Amino acid sequence: MSHTTNQSWGGRFSEPTDAFVARFTASVDFDRQLALHDIQGSRAHATMLARVGVLSEDERDTILGGLDDVAADIEAGTFEWSVELEDVHMNVEASLTEKIGITGKKLHTGRSRNDQVATDIRLFMRDAIDNVAGELARLREGLIDLADREAETIMPGFTHLQSAQPVTFGHHLLAWQEMLARDHERLLDCRRRVNVLPLGAAALAGTTYPIDRHVTAELLGFERPAENSLDAVSDRDFAIEFTSFASLLLMHLSRMSEELVLWTSAQFDFIDLPDRFCTGSSIMPQKKNPDVPELVRGKSGRVYGHLMSLLTLMKSQPLAYNKDNQEDKEPLFDTVRTVQDCLKAFADMVPAIEAKSANMFEAARQGFSTATDLADYLVRKGVAFRDAHEIVGQSVAHGLREGRDLSEMSLEELQRFSDTIEQDVFEVLTLEGSVAARNHIGGTAPDQVRAAAQRARDGLAASGSTG
Amino acid sequence: MSHTTNQSWGGRFSEPTDAFVARFTASVDFDRQLALHDIQGSRAHATMLARVGVLSEDERDTILGGLDDVAADIEAGTFEWSVELEDVHMNVEASLTEKIGITGKKLHTGRSRNDQVATDIRLFMRDAIDNVAGELARLREGLIDLADREAETIMPGFTHLQSAQPVTFGHHLLAWQEMLARDHERLLDCRRRVNVLPLGAAALAGTTYPIDRHVTAELLGFERPAENSLDAVSDRDFAIEFTSFASLLLMHLSRMSEELVLWTSAQFDFIDLPDRFCTGSSIMPQKKNPDVPELVRGKSGRVYGHLMSLLTLMKSQPLAYNKDNQEDKEPLFDTVRTVQDCLKAFADMVPAIEAKSANMFEAARQGFSTATDLADYLVRKGVAFRDAHEIVGQSVAHGLREGRDLSEMSLEELQRFSDTIEQDVFEVLTLEGSVAARNHIGGTAPDQVRAAAQRARDGLAASGSTG
Amino acid sequence: MSHTTNQSWGGRFSEPTDAFVARFTASVDFDRQLALHDIQGSRAHATMLARVGVLSEDERDTILGGLDDVAADIEAGTFEWSVELEDVHMNVEASLTEKIGITGKKLHTGRSRNDQVATDIRLFMRDAIDNVAGELARLREGLIDLADREAETIMPGFTHLQSAQPVTFGHHLLAWQEMLARDHERLLDCRRRVNVLPLGAAALAGTTYPIDRHVTAELLGFERPAENSLDAVSDRDFAIEFTSFASLLLMHLSRMSEELVLWTSAQFDFIDLPDRFCTGSSIMPQKKNPDVPELVRGKSGRVYGHLMSLLTLMKSQPLAYNKDNQEDKEPLFDTVRTVQDCLKAFADMVPAIEAKSANMFEAARQGFSTATDLADYLVRKGVAFRDAHEIVGQSVAHGLREGRDLSEMSLEELQRFSDTIEQDVFEVLTLEGSVAARNHIGGTAPDQVRAAAQRARDGLAASGSTG
Amino acid sequence: MSHTTNQSWGGRFSEPTDAFVARFTASVDFDRQLALHDIQGSRAHATMLARVGVLSEDERDTILGGLDDVAADIEAGTFEWSVELEDVHMNVEASLTEKIGITGKKLHTGRSRNDQVATDIRLFMRDAIDNVAGELARLREGLIDLADREAETIMPGFTHLQSAQPVTFGHHLLAWQEMLARDHERLLDCRRRVNVLPLGAAALAGTTYPIDRHVTAELLGFERPAENSLDAVSDRDFAIEFTSFASLLLMHLSRMSEELVLWTSAQFDFIDLPDRFCTGSSIMPQKKNPDVPELVRGKSGRVYGHLMSLLTLMKSQPLAYNKDNQEDKEPLFDTVRTVQDCLKAFADMVPAIEAKSANMFEAARQGFSTATDLADYLVRKGVAFRDAHEIVGQSVAHGLREGRDLSEMSLEELQRFSDTIEQDVFEVLTLEGSVAARNHIGGTAPDQVRAAAQRARDGLAASGSTG
Repeated sequence: MSHTTNQSWGGRFSEPTDAFVARFTASVDFDRQLALHDIQGSRAHATMLARVGVLSEDERDTILGGLDDVAADIEAGTFEWSVELEDVHMNVEASLTEKIGITGKKLHTGRSRNDQVATDIRLFMRDAIDNVAGELARLREGLIDLADREAETIMPGFTHLQSAQPVTFGHHLLAWQEMLARDHERLLDCRRRVNVLPLGAAALAGTTYPIDRHVTAELLGFERPAENSLDAVSDRDFAIEFTSFASLLLMHLSRMSEELVLWTSAQFDFIDLPDRFCTGSSIMPQKKNPDVPELVRGKSGRVYGHLMSLLTLMKSQPLAYNKDNQEDKEPLFDTVRTVQDCLKAFADMVPAIEAKSANMFEAARQGFSTATDLADYLVRKGVAFRDAHEIVGQSVAHGLREGRDLSEMSLEELQRFSDTIEQDVFEVLTLEGSVAARNHIGGTAPDQVRAAAQRARDGLAASGSTG
Repeated sequence: MSHTTNQSWGGRFSEPTDAFVARFTASVDFDRQLALHDIQGSRAHATMLARVGVLSEDERDTILGGLDDVAADIEAGTFEWSVELEDVHMNVEASLTEKIGITGKKLHTGRSRNDQVATDIRLFMRDAIDNVAGELARLREGLIDLADREAETIMPGFTHLQSAQPVTFGHHLLAWQEMLARDHERLLDCRRRVNVLPLGAAALAGTTYPIDRHVTAELLGFERPAENSLDAVSDRDFAIEFTSFASLLLMHLSRMSEELVLWTSAQFDFIDLPDRFCTGSSIMPQKKNPDVPELVRGKSGRVYGHLMSLLTLMKSQPLAYNKDNQEDKEPLFDTVRTVQDCLKAFADMVPAIEAKSANMFEAARQGFSTATDLADYLVRKGVAFRDAHEIVGQSVAHGLREGRDLSEMSLEELQRFSDTIEQDVFEVLTLEGSVAARNHIGGTAPDQVRAAAQRARDGLAASGSTG
Repeated sequence: MSHTTNQSWGGRFSEPTDAFVARFTASVDFDRQLALHDIQGSRAHATMLARVGVLSEDERDTILGGLDDVAADIEAGTFEWSVELEDVHMNVEASLTEKIGITGKKLHTGRSRNDQVATDIRLFMRDAIDNVAGELARLREGLIDLADREAETIMPGFTHLQSAQPVTFGHHLLAWQEMLARDHERLLDCRRRVNVLPLGAAALAGTTYPIDRHVTAELLGFERPAENSLDAVSDRDFAIEFTSFASLLLMHLSRMSEELVLWTSAQFDFIDLPDRFCTGSSIMPQKKNPDVPELVRGKSGRVYGHLMSLLTLMKSQPLAYNKDNQEDKEPLFDTVRTVQDCLKAFADMVPAIEAKSANMFEAARQGFSTATDLADYLVRKGVAFRDAHEIVGQSVAHGLREGRDLSEMSLEELQRFSDTIEQDVFEVLTLEGSVAARNHIGGTAPDQVRAAAQRARDGLAASGSTG
Repeated sequence: MSHTTNQSWGGRFSEPTDAFVARFTASVDFDRQLALHDIQGSRAHATMLARVGVLSEDERDTILGGLDDVAADIEAGTFEWSVELEDVHMNVEASLTEKIGITGKKLHTGRSRNDQVATDIRLFMRDAIDNVAGELARLREGLIDLADREAETIMPGFTHLQSAQPVTFGHHLLAWQEMLARDHERLLDCRRRVNVLPLGAAALAGTTYPIDRHVTAELLGFERPAENSLDAVSDRDFAIEFTSFASLLLMHLSRMSEELVLWTSAQFDFIDLPDRFCTGSSIMPQKKNPDVPELVRGKSGRVYGHLMSLLTLMKSQPLAYNKDNQEDKEPLFDTVRTVQDCLKAFADMVPAIEAKSANMFEAARQGFSTATDLADYLVRKGVAFRDAHEIVGQSVAHGLREGRDLSEMSLEELQRFSDTIEQDVFEVLTLEGSVAARNHIGGTAPDQVRAAAQRARDGLAASGSTG
């Protein structure tokens, strides 16, 4: 059994760490993604330490210069990461000390890796959130524009995947945009709770050095210092809250994906996706597969899994920091990347969706989708609703037997079921009449769709995210 | 195979529903919990219909009177629920029609069960949230009061369940209160998104009747009508968002529970829980078991499960309403009840926690918990931090061998490891000195704890929830 | 605050349990479902105690008689359950003692509620498994019969929901039956691990009475006594393993449901479900909704949630019994009921599925589904596979433009893309030729389907479950 | 927007794949882990094709030689992976064709990537299972040996983390080994269902080439060909079943970890873990943290998450292959690696656990842990159990007030609560007497522990896995 030594906590230890254990417990393979945020936090910490007199101005400048050099190495890809040094913090510190000597060690004054990693990850999350908000806005814009263009395109509206009532395609697309608008709100709510400074909590209890946490918070753009040191080092709510947001978002994207997959099937044939968003088959030359929506649909499981992973992780942990917490990073990083990729894929694809409006219209025309309109017509003529429902049910049963939609029947045929029906019935049996009649806020009438698109655009602008 | 008939959609059907299928698909066994909210929604709908002229004032009054009678039956427990009538809506409507005759049928004008159930459940959720917010506030108050009382009580602060640094018990309790403060914020964020009116979306596309959804929204205290009818009937985000909130809350309560269980063990013996919150054993007469925290800890799994259930439910459902959605209610109802019970149990119990401060102090004294203070002392005397760490590590190794804490060693003994150590070291090695020195915002010093308790009290008051 | 007293562990307690806590921690509302299994276990325990001389034969007979009376009350619905008595065990014991006096107390000799509940739940699970196995067998039989009948019915086989190659409907149904065959195997594997006796583990360490656990095991039909008392009272693996089985089963049923929903849509129109398995709409008279498959699909989330709940529950619990464990029952009971209901619904419905074979055939004919056959044809004529793929790709592109399937093109048309194509191509382009050519074990040829159905029938018979 | 071309399905496509989409949908970054299993499957496929005459013997030998060269490149780390080639299969095939020319293309005859990847992953899983079984056996051996050594070491047995009854440490360790024995059984059950051949299913329907799947199955050591081609390409049960096994295993390891963390705390101080399995703190020199068990405990969440991810992934997917399925690999690979690492860490660590038997004994002596023995003693003297329970409860209450355990009271003191108590009571109040009296199968008596260890060893040997 070979061993490695970890010199940063050696005094109390009589034998070195087992080599496998060292690899098993090290985090540098994944937490190196935090390196630039680690340096960002260190810069602010050094600046604050100088402000309160714990570092001299010279020491501060030496440290800031050294950190610049380390950052340059990392960005250039020339930084040499070492598993022996366990994590990103020790790797960066070791490199700094190598560059500027003993002064580098002073940077760790008044902090611990516990508050340091909590700070890094919040800085990382804040950037990730801002990026995600941008992509989300871009996708929403794409949907609103497409909805506006398709405000008059008629398709069947489904419940239970059975044709229910005609709707406009633009109205359907705005339903998607409503889902995303709620996600956007949740994301910004989450950002507020991310944007709080843990640094200064030290290992768990605060520090005996005369630090000024308000200064550090201001330097890093955090809204305020975290209120309690024990909480600051052990809180991972923000990771769970972000992953909850992501689970809802992916759920929505998986619903949209399901519809895109249905709509591109030969059986529905409602839309066309450009070839560049599809793939083919190595064995079946005729295939054009909607891979992007399928893959996004599949990735909902991935994000749900990460949410469950993080919730389980934190369950019944006593305060304050425990090693278990190290397991927070991989699910969180993967969630961020998955969200970014899926949003980008959708934001690119949505504007390229091509509606096959004739097919949509024909499908709406055939599914007895104006049956409700006929019932409403009868009610307006004084028939009790339950009686009207029965009359229309029998007309539909007749239509099914004969293979004809309501609008394809003659007046005489319709009158067999109720003599209240007159010539004006055919106005309400048209698809255009049906959708135009649902003319109130939230309804599917083209005018409402255009007005809703405008409100959505205004709402998006007010959210402050730019696509 | 016996059959039942459902007369509300019979016209198109040539055979009645299978009896088992009728029971399997019925929801009245659980959605009857929505009955009073269903009536609340119907009252507003009838009032609006009269306002726009679809109902006469007489019809409206007849309906409102009938609904009052139905509500009275339900509250009196004399309402007869029927599985044949499928769900709460049909049960209420049938009872109404029985009471007031054919006018009862007119209530359903311009709405569908799809938007009706979505409205009911939002009304239910809004009430549930307000109740939960009240209990959460009561628990937070209890914690703040206890923290204030225990601002000077010293206990070991743990990381990795190893004694790390001394903290004050009040500080530890305020860490709990911080968790709950975030939960409280999330709950109120969720409330905003719950408080939107689906009614008017009808089955999925809106209605041809001249409804005024702003009137209905105002009557029901909703902030605004939902923007899109397809989304309004298929959206279950609010259920997922509430369950996400609940998962985080239960995670926090499970962490507190874990600590309460540890602290009441013979090995820790840090606190006493009154007998009325514990149970005994039928076979082991000496047992006094912390059942309440154990059970709350266990209930975290229950709520996590409901979250997963709801997320899975909605995954890749095409728009608009599908029967799958009926599965949203049981997990949501159970989550609400679980959250209410667990919060009540904790809010009752927390004020009765009795700190065994002598035991806490003794535990803090023995775990080398001021080792960091010794290192900081050495650094202030000019020793490099890494050297100081090594010196203290060796002192601790010595102490472990001799069975003595740092503060129990003589000056000569300590000086064996560094001659920089002088008589004044014993000030920093005391627990009182250690905690008092962490005197910055978020730190564990008693003064900070009292100030933090005051800020927490102010924040709670500002949240508008009352305990 | 009102209080209740629990006399079974009162000696050490100075105040009674808080009334809310008593309700919060009581389990009788749900564990009463175990009552008859509790009595079954008690009967065996009493018999064993008499066998080893701890009870006299008279005492045993008195107890067995009393237990019969209690069981009769329960079955008659006249048993009075009391929340004050906490759980099913204390309720049954109290009733027994009321009936037969002080001898009733002796029944608890040498056992504890910890091993008692573990025994009850295993007896319950064994019965549940046998019931589920029967329904599963019935569903499998229905599928095999239907597959046999539809061995020659041609439909499009899909990948990515795009028409890929023609398959037979019988072949598709046997794919479903394969999923269920694996579930069946897993269920029987689980049964082996359920069928082990915890009784005798007492509270956690065994008992000082001279019990004979082999006798009890034999009386209850258990394979063997559990090997370790600490494990016996704290093990809940069987609940998790059953719920894992159930999650896979519901996943399979949700896949079948998804297809049933698709196939009953107007766009696919591949099958008809009898009216008795469908429901209608109160507002849209034309609707006939596939509620049963939709609801089953939705219930997958419910069972996944229970699995997550149970896994979370047990995570990081120290040995042995903790109150958390009480939370195992509700998810387990609900999983059993859900599995039973969903299997019954499917087993009733599957034999009634009516294939619309003309629609299936037409869909297969239109989707270029024999493109692979054309490629294989070219390869057999000596064309390199990649070249053949390219030729067919271009033919398909042409067909898409012209709106004609491959088999609808003239020979001249096809020869534009490769002069290797000759008159015999039309044999491979027929759907019948395509499916018949896949004539090896596992292939879709009608002969293979019939042979596979026979093997499936034999395998089912060998499993020992009867439908 | 830059583009890439995928030549394997180009004919039908009018524009190349978007570059981001190509990266987003490619799997080679992770499925390259299957490369050697892909080659193993290809070798068998080529051999079978020659056996049935589809390939000549020369072609077969050329292909086998080429595959050897590709494998050598991969093992040497010199293989150049290309994202443009999408996945491991196309990468290997392209390299093969580059090496041996056009003959390389013939390898793909009669198969598709759909059955190929299903085969690869089953070969991978079978190897992974065998490796995991070995580590599991090694850990079980370590536990059995340690249990045997500690068969007489007395510690408190806990329920509710309260001292309940004395047990032997060996008995406690065998409870852990029972959990793992069940896991081991489940793993071997899973292996049976993994060990089935998908190859021959081709894209979804089988192939028109005269393949012999029994030959391929035999060459690859699979038990039999999969029965149904549609199922064979779409089944991912084995991944879910393995992850279910892994979730239960990690749950067990997390329970053991929780106890190791408790036992190494200063408050319990029951065991010592060697320094090589622990880590220290960069800021608190006294810390020795049980990182390995903490990290393993945390990793339970990771595996639970993967289980939920896979279950969600497969939910309601229609047959057969969909792109979603590509998401099966990363959770599965990570589960395998996590299981292997955690088992290795535990198998290395367990033999090094050092019991602090004096501390354990003292803890058992102080917690009134022989109270049940006193009650049993009274019952044997003729006192009714409920009365005995009350007497002991009062004795304990007295002991708590006086700070003395039952065994530390004088006879007179004890007789205050019942004059049935005589001098011989002190035999049953000793810890040794208490544990020795639980002398039946499953009981904690040292003799039983040694016998159970022997049975466990025999059972492990019979399982066929070697540690």
